[in-house]
Amino acid sequence: MSDMTSTADAPRSPGRPRSTRADEAIVDATLDLLAEGSTIESLSIEAIAARAGVGKATIYRRWAGKDALLLDALRTLKGPAPRTAGRSVRDDLVLLVGAVGQHADPRVRKIMPCLVPEVNRSSAHRQAYEAIVEPRRAALREVLGRAIERGELRADLDIEVTMSLLTAPMLTQRMLRWHPERDERMLPERIVDTVLDGLRAR
Amino acid sequence: MSDMTSTADAPRSPGRPRSTRADEAIVDATLDLLAEGSTIESLSIEAIAARAGVGKATIYRRWAGKDALLLDALRTLKGPAPRTAGRSVRDDLVLLVGAVGQHADPRVRKIMPCLVPEVNRSSAHRQAYEAIVEPRRAALREVLGRAIERGELRADLDIEVTMSLLTAPMLTQRMLRWHPERDERMLPERIVDTVLDGLRAR
Repeated sequence: MSDMTSTADAPRSPGRPRSTRADEAIVDATLDLLAEGSTIESLSIEAIAARAGVGKATIYRRWAGKDALLLDALRTLKGPAPRTAGRSVRDDLVLLVGAVGQHADPRVRKIMPCLVPEVNRSSAHRQAYEAIVEPRRAALREVLGRAIERGELRADLDIEVTMSLLTAPMLTQRMLRWHPERDERMLPERIVDTVLDGLRAR
Repeated sequence: MSDMTSTADAPRSPGRPRSTRADEAIVDATLDLLAEGSTIESLSIEAIAARAGVGKATIYRRWAGKDALLLDALRTLKGPAPRTAGRSVRDDLVLLVGAVGQHADPRVRKIMPCLVPEVNRSSAHRQAYEAIVEPRRAALREVLGRAIERGELRADLDIEVTMSLLTAPMLTQRMLRWHPERDERMLPERIVDTVLDGLRAR
């Protein structure tokens, strides 16, 4: 794509990072269009360029195509995985559960629920999405594995189901707003404590 | 709406139920349009009538308007809540968890994830949706309450969070296909057993 030119952009000096203002405007335009109901299929570089107020060449100079741009846009929504202290399994789990579906960007609620079924229709999209989510899953898996080694958690634990038990209630709350009236602040602790202790009377 | 006429329909004899063929076609057309990506807002009686091959009057004779029709269509997707045997809390929970997001109609996966944020934008839609979901929640609440009374489950149980722990992993699996590769058949038992026993080593 290096032979594409755009008169709208100032020439870059060597070693200087690309205009982050334009990058942000392009990612922002992508998320706006998705939040307004555009499907992945109908999303076009033309529409993104028009919305961001840049030329198509500016987009192609930074991203190989729509899928690469989409992946960066979703990564922006997700943000980095939180870092656990590693001292208490309960505290680490509360931190990680609290980060599930926690996004500063309010567009995420409009984008994500509809996007997931779309993402699943294409294995390339699915893989790209997994690459975003996997670091967060790995952090959770590590905390559980460490606690099993220490003898704090049951050795025969169903790790995969445990991860769903910890994350799915937060996801449905934050993404789908399943219970709009619910107080979200105490929810991570309530989830972690109920999962740790189980339901049975002892 | 009784003064509206439609030449397309045969006159009904008194006491005879309305043409269920036409009703089914109308509900079916509504679900088709939603599954194809129509939003609640953009869904029109005109489009539903055209898709179902009936006159608008046929729809208005049966439903007060779009919202009433939408509610019936969603109720059709959900189906009735399963009946529990009441003998074992584990068996009852496995039955109810197994019914979460379990729909014979494959359109549900396309319709529900996108619909929930839309439903939440209007309190009338939200109330209508709650009316569909509430019998299923009540059945789960009853099984948990009975088991607490019998002393099988902890008396200090966080019922609301427990209901999310039991249902949200199935919902994300079946509605969002969070883990498309996962074997769903054993999932209700794995969820119920992990929630009942908890994570802590004892």
